[in-house]
Amino acid sequence: MSVHQVLTGLDAVRADLEEFYRDLHRHPELGLREHRTAAKVAQALREDGYDVTEGIGGTGVTAVLANGPGPVVMARADMDALPVREQTGLPYASTVTDGDQPVMHACGHDVHVTALTGCARLLARARESWQGTFVALFQPSEENGDGADAMIDDGLTGRVPAPDVVLAQHVLPYPAGYVGIRAGPFLSAADSLEVTVHGRGAHGSKPESAVDPVVMAAMIVVRLQTVVARELAATTPAVLTVGSIHAGSGPNIIPDRAVIQLNVRTYDEATRAHVLEAIDRIVRAECAASGARQAPVIRRIASFPPTVNDEEPTRRVAAAFADHFGETHTIDLQTASEDMSLIPQAFGAPFTYWGFGGTDPAEYAEADKRGTLAHDIPVNHNPRFAPVIQPTLDTGVTAMAVAALAWLAA
Amino acid sequence: MSVHQVLTGLDAVRADLEEFYRDLHRHPELGLREHRTAAKVAQALREDGYDVTEGIGGTGVTAVLANGPGPVVMARADMDALPVREQTGLPYASTVTDGDQPVMHACGHDVHVTALTGCARLLARARESWQGTFVALFQPSEENGDGADAMIDDGLTGRVPAPDVVLAQHVLPYPAGYVGIRAGPFLSAADSLEVTVHGRGAHGSKPESAVDPVVMAAMIVVRLQTVVARELAATTPAVLTVGSIHAGSGPNIIPDRAVIQLNVRTYDEATRAHVLEAIDRIVRAECAASGARQAPVIRRIASFPPTVNDEEPTRRVAAAFADHFGETHTIDLQTASEDMSLIPQAFGAPFTYWGFGGTDPAEYAEADKRGTLAHDIPVNHNPRFAPVIQPTLDTGVTAMAVAALAWLAA
Amino acid sequence: MSVHQVLTGLDAVRADLEEFYRDLHRHPELGLREHRTAAKVAQALREDGYDVTEGIGGTGVTAVLANGPGPVVMARADMDALPVREQTGLPYASTVTDGDQPVMHACGHDVHVTALTGCARLLARARESWQGTFVALFQPSEENGDGADAMIDDGLTGRVPAPDVVLAQHVLPYPAGYVGIRAGPFLSAADSLEVTVHGRGAHGSKPESAVDPVVMAAMIVVRLQTVVARELAATTPAVLTVGSIHAGSGPNIIPDRAVIQLNVRTYDEATRAHVLEAIDRIVRAECAASGARQAPVIRRIASFPPTVNDEEPTRRVAAAFADHFGETHTIDLQTASEDMSLIPQAFGAPFTYWGFGGTDPAEYAEADKRGTLAHDIPVNHNPRFAPVIQPTLDTGVTAMAVAALAWLAA
Amino acid sequence: MSVHQVLTGLDAVRADLEEFYRDLHRHPELGLREHRTAAKVAQALREDGYDVTEGIGGTGVTAVLANGPGPVVMARADMDALPVREQTGLPYASTVTDGDQPVMHACGHDVHVTALTGCARLLARARESWQGTFVALFQPSEENGDGADAMIDDGLTGRVPAPDVVLAQHVLPYPAGYVGIRAGPFLSAADSLEVTVHGRGAHGSKPESAVDPVVMAAMIVVRLQTVVARELAATTPAVLTVGSIHAGSGPNIIPDRAVIQLNVRTYDEATRAHVLEAIDRIVRAECAASGARQAPVIRRIASFPPTVNDEEPTRRVAAAFADHFGETHTIDLQTASEDMSLIPQAFGAPFTYWGFGGTDPAEYAEADKRGTLAHDIPVNHNPRFAPVIQPTLDTGVTAMAVAALAWLAA
Repeated sequence: MSVHQVLTGLDAVRADLEEFYRDLHRHPELGLREHRTAAKVAQALREDGYDVTEGIGGTGVTAVLANGPGPVVMARADMDALPVREQTGLPYASTVTDGDQPVMHACGHDVHVTALTGCARLLARARESWQGTFVALFQPSEENGDGADAMIDDGLTGRVPAPDVVLAQHVLPYPAGYVGIRAGPFLSAADSLEVTVHGRGAHGSKPESAVDPVVMAAMIVVRLQTVVARELAATTPAVLTVGSIHAGSGPNIIPDRAVIQLNVRTYDEATRAHVLEAIDRIVRAECAASGARQAPVIRRIASFPPTVNDEEPTRRVAAAFADHFGETHTIDLQTASEDMSLIPQAFGAPFTYWGFGGTDPAEYAEADKRGTLAHDIPVNHNPRFAPVIQPTLDTGVTAMAVAALAWLAA
Repeated sequence: MSVHQVLTGLDAVRADLEEFYRDLHRHPELGLREHRTAAKVAQALREDGYDVTEGIGGTGVTAVLANGPGPVVMARADMDALPVREQTGLPYASTVTDGDQPVMHACGHDVHVTALTGCARLLARARESWQGTFVALFQPSEENGDGADAMIDDGLTGRVPAPDVVLAQHVLPYPAGYVGIRAGPFLSAADSLEVTVHGRGAHGSKPESAVDPVVMAAMIVVRLQTVVARELAATTPAVLTVGSIHAGSGPNIIPDRAVIQLNVRTYDEATRAHVLEAIDRIVRAECAASGARQAPVIRRIASFPPTVNDEEPTRRVAAAFADHFGETHTIDLQTASEDMSLIPQAFGAPFTYWGFGGTDPAEYAEADKRGTLAHDIPVNHNPRFAPVIQPTLDTGVTAMAVAALAWLAA
Repeated sequence: MSVHQVLTGLDAVRADLEEFYRDLHRHPELGLREHRTAAKVAQALREDGYDVTEGIGGTGVTAVLANGPGPVVMARADMDALPVREQTGLPYASTVTDGDQPVMHACGHDVHVTALTGCARLLARARESWQGTFVALFQPSEENGDGADAMIDDGLTGRVPAPDVVLAQHVLPYPAGYVGIRAGPFLSAADSLEVTVHGRGAHGSKPESAVDPVVMAAMIVVRLQTVVARELAATTPAVLTVGSIHAGSGPNIIPDRAVIQLNVRTYDEATRAHVLEAIDRIVRAECAASGARQAPVIRRIASFPPTVNDEEPTRRVAAAFADHFGETHTIDLQTASEDMSLIPQAFGAPFTYWGFGGTDPAEYAEADKRGTLAHDIPVNHNPRFAPVIQPTLDTGVTAMAVAALAWLAA
Repeated sequence: MSVHQVLTGLDAVRADLEEFYRDLHRHPELGLREHRTAAKVAQALREDGYDVTEGIGGTGVTAVLANGPGPVVMARADMDALPVREQTGLPYASTVTDGDQPVMHACGHDVHVTALTGCARLLARARESWQGTFVALFQPSEENGDGADAMIDDGLTGRVPAPDVVLAQHVLPYPAGYVGIRAGPFLSAADSLEVTVHGRGAHGSKPESAVDPVVMAAMIVVRLQTVVARELAATTPAVLTVGSIHAGSGPNIIPDRAVIQLNVRTYDEATRAHVLEAIDRIVRAECAASGARQAPVIRRIASFPPTVNDEEPTRRVAAAFADHFGETHTIDLQTASEDMSLIPQAFGAPFTYWGFGGTDPAEYAEADKRGTLAHDIPVNHNPRFAPVIQPTLDTGVTAMAVAALAWLAA
């Protein structure tokens, strides 16, 4: 009932939202530089009567609409774009650069911002259909993993009402119109480490004078394979990738150190802790096996928590989706990562996070039939990632409104 | 002059020595069971007027001939045979077994015993041609590496005159007639270790409950390759062989431990110590890398010292060989090992140890021409190892007499 | 309604079933030797009016009850025991040996046989409450993975009516009373391989004359870790365990071959094929890297298919369980394996397979509270595996009857 | 007699030679750019009556003095310097740069050039004391390994008389005054390879979409350790160093290739061929083990032959050194490499090459007593490598003259 009343306003705002989206897409901004985006959102929601605060954690924005007694629902969207040169060929493609870096909304955060702005607008225009408080939160710098922390460190929890639940969503390479959710683990934790091992350099013909860091690093890479293969259960998903290895400057000099960079994906804190401990253990042991005199340096260079949806709000949103969309999809575990969960954790609130499709359904179906989905559909971060505007935006607006109203419906 | 006078007696004893040799070859005895051999040697040297002591260290024999003032020269031969089933087809081949083990003089110790007995006899019959003291020592159990120690532990140094030099020789797959010697490192040290690594067993489908000792042992084997490849100079000879690896009883149970046995060959004490330390370091580090809770057990199961010929006596013997044989060969470094050097060490005496050939010179030359030496000439420990009787025995007797007389010549 | 009518007979047969179970437990029989078990089952079901055939595939038994038009439901139980020495201390513990092997129902197949016999009996005594055909199938030699094939090879499909669905269940270390089911992958495929790699033996001091099979096997073990770690998705469960490695007889001889045995667990045919191909690829490549002249021999020594429950019958049984037991549990993916699925495949019929608990619920709860479940509760194949008789047997009988009646209920 | 007559002139030229040396040291030139050096040498030898040819192979110089019938002796010196910033603090230290590269005679080629110029001068001034033909050859670009080839490719063999023997010498960190020589292997062959392995890139979270080149390269590094450790005899010196490994640009992207650079040192052509074949075999096998679709690219980036002194000329020079210097040292096998041997090979002539010391004898003796030789004495290529002028230059001039006169003495 409430849902119907709220969504009835969508027709009136659709064209504006689409233009809003194209404008965002044309003007992507890198993390913690989302000044234009933040200003645009703030202006829009102020027009709708929201109590807007800008500049939280640099460029973060909150917009609060208190609409009588009732639950507080926070909905979060991320605003930042990526250093990718757009190759979509869209009329509204980005040509923006930041310094010498091209910039593109290659991850669809422009969709998220538009959908949340649209949802907030619909709720503002149908205040009689719900009660409680709706908090729209626009977060900077998700890609770098430091935007949620920036807002929290800047006093977020004291600046908006504490939510009873936090909601978020992500556009993904499913067919537009698709909405999927899952309880428990949804997105992986991601931890990036840089490991520097110290040997002792020497002329290539004198290995007896050296502690060879190339062999040491190679043994570490090899040994690390046992973490996923031997230390975790078959049913515990995890990835440990050594993405880079660098040592030496020529064939004939044994260098004095080697540097490897690695990335770990896990889905729960116990596994995450186990894998990080195993890396530390293996790196130190392999340095000891080589007789290295200097300890290795292991540095965390990026870190995302796992995104584990709470059971109760997930079940509630799933039921609301089933009611509204006619069915609920259980979305697959994703190997991507997010810092979104830090926000509900800061408030001690439960949360749920779901995905929705952005791919042209016809294209998707054809690629699926050909068995070439993985090859033909550009995924997030790809320079050709180009969500179809509709029904993607409608789905994003609707899904967020339906979910919020699962708490706020009168 | 002395040499000529002593060797003049060889014609008279040659036939007896050959028969003595064939009898020894027919009746091989395993280490510390050389009762018949020892008795035969003792009887022969008593007949020649030696002061013979039997039973030192079980089956060891010494025979002393004091022949006036002058240096004390000790010459050592080893007596034991091997658990090998003879396949030489010789008329005097061994058919002996000890318990269920076949026994064969596959290492040529029967040649050494005969040559030393012959040399002792010639010296006894030409006492006017030399002066000093000649000590013939027949050692048990060289193959097991415990015979020299057995004699020393049984009071050897208090039971015979302290030598000024100790001499020994070994028949090798060079052409009969060849005698070669080298100063410094000649035979390798050999150390055999057994390493037991302890993991934690589990069903094969539950690696997360296990600490996999198969992977741990495999990583150790792989890592040990770096010792010779990366920790030693190109010009430092060494071998590290993992001869056995055993773990588990079936495909689907992760066992709780693995056992590897390995052997190290080095040529000097510094390298030996380095390699043994590296093995310890690597085994412990790989167990740590696996997160093993129980420390590995590293047990020395056999140990031979390096045989490093002293400079002065080697130069003196080489010169004597050059005088007598017309030239001196510098023999190659051998990868075999010996416990002989423990005897001079017990006395604090210098020593030199040389090799002489036992292969039919014509066969050797043909194989050499074909480039198939390694394939066609049976080497020591091979079931077809069959020294030609002559000129092998003559060379062995002569070389030992010439060397001894380098000190004893009047 | 039907369910209630059928199950009403349970009180009358409970005591007999418990005695039937204790007798089976006391008299375990190894695979393809289940003569006593088969005879006992055959006799019981003949008494109930079933059309019984014995000796299918050696010791397999089928019992058919045609009860008017309607679906044909086949229910399968496995009969064989394990070569384990029972350590339960139960009054009805096994003391049986077969040759020199102890025998024990350590996997609970006695529970399965009893539950199916009980279910068959209840259906026979309440024929008015259902219609269709019920086929009870008692399979030999599940543990060896050759019992289902033995029955199929012996003409099973021509000897009983073709089923519309096949049902099976397994007692597991969950609390007695628990019943859990899942659609899709449930049990893993299991493939055991024996790999023999051929090097070239040599004395330990002569690696240059050898192709070292110890190093070759160790490199294979190490390299195989990359299959699970690098070739499969994080969310694709799989295990590759090298359970045994054997080479060599001492520290100082490089042997001429090494043998490893390994076991692979996968949950779908594509992953299974990929992993088996990867093993073949890696073994051959590592032999090539070593310069082995002789190809490795890779021999399949055991093979179980994955057990992947069909969607439709699983949903139907889950709904029936929910109706009867008040709730349905989604059971976890198991790393165990089964040959049961070969039977429905032989008929082209769908199937579903579920688990039920056998552990004393109070013990389970306490261990769970202590966090020592993995340590304190003896699992299948453990010599102390001892299901509590009740409510285990009642649950097994009931679950099978409820599931069968999901098709047969009048 | 001849030697004495020739060397008698040394006192008269010593001061000039020392100044010649300091000037060369102050003006080092990189390979194939030795224009000033070549011009200086050419002028000096023309003054002495030599028939000088410049510009052979770019900057190479030959100077021929035909002095009646007799043997033709060629003596070779190398002229190029290294891109090293001198840190000797000498008054005549280099401050030269070439482009942005510092340049220094850090390998002592200035000593070689001076010694050969001095020897040539002494021979020119004492023509009555010898007969035959003396050819002084000044080679460019030894450090890059392409200078000898450059001269040969430029027609060297047709431009000077064919030598009966070729002589060369190198200053090394032995005490000044020391001269050492050895027959057979003296300097190692050196081969540098670059190996590019091709995998398939993917996001770090999707190893199943990738063929991981980091793991492939690491396995290659590990596997290559077995070449020296398992494929060569203990007594066959060889080094295989992987000096550099590079792959990837960050922690979370699996790159599509990896590049390793490696250097091989061997002392005979059979071992060299074996090791190069083993590298090829292992690289290809490890790529196959990873399932790489694209073959690796193995590129030879530098190559030096082994320097194996011929027996006869070495014995002759050793005897001449013993006569003149009172004793002959057998110099150790060196792990350095040279392209000098290509020159005698081009002529089909035998050669011998020896070393002489450049370290202050007092400093050397003190460091030797402290056991810190390896640490305290700067070796060739070190920015602090600073031969003492005397007796280094006298020794270099004398050794070359003594050696040449072993053929040319009247």
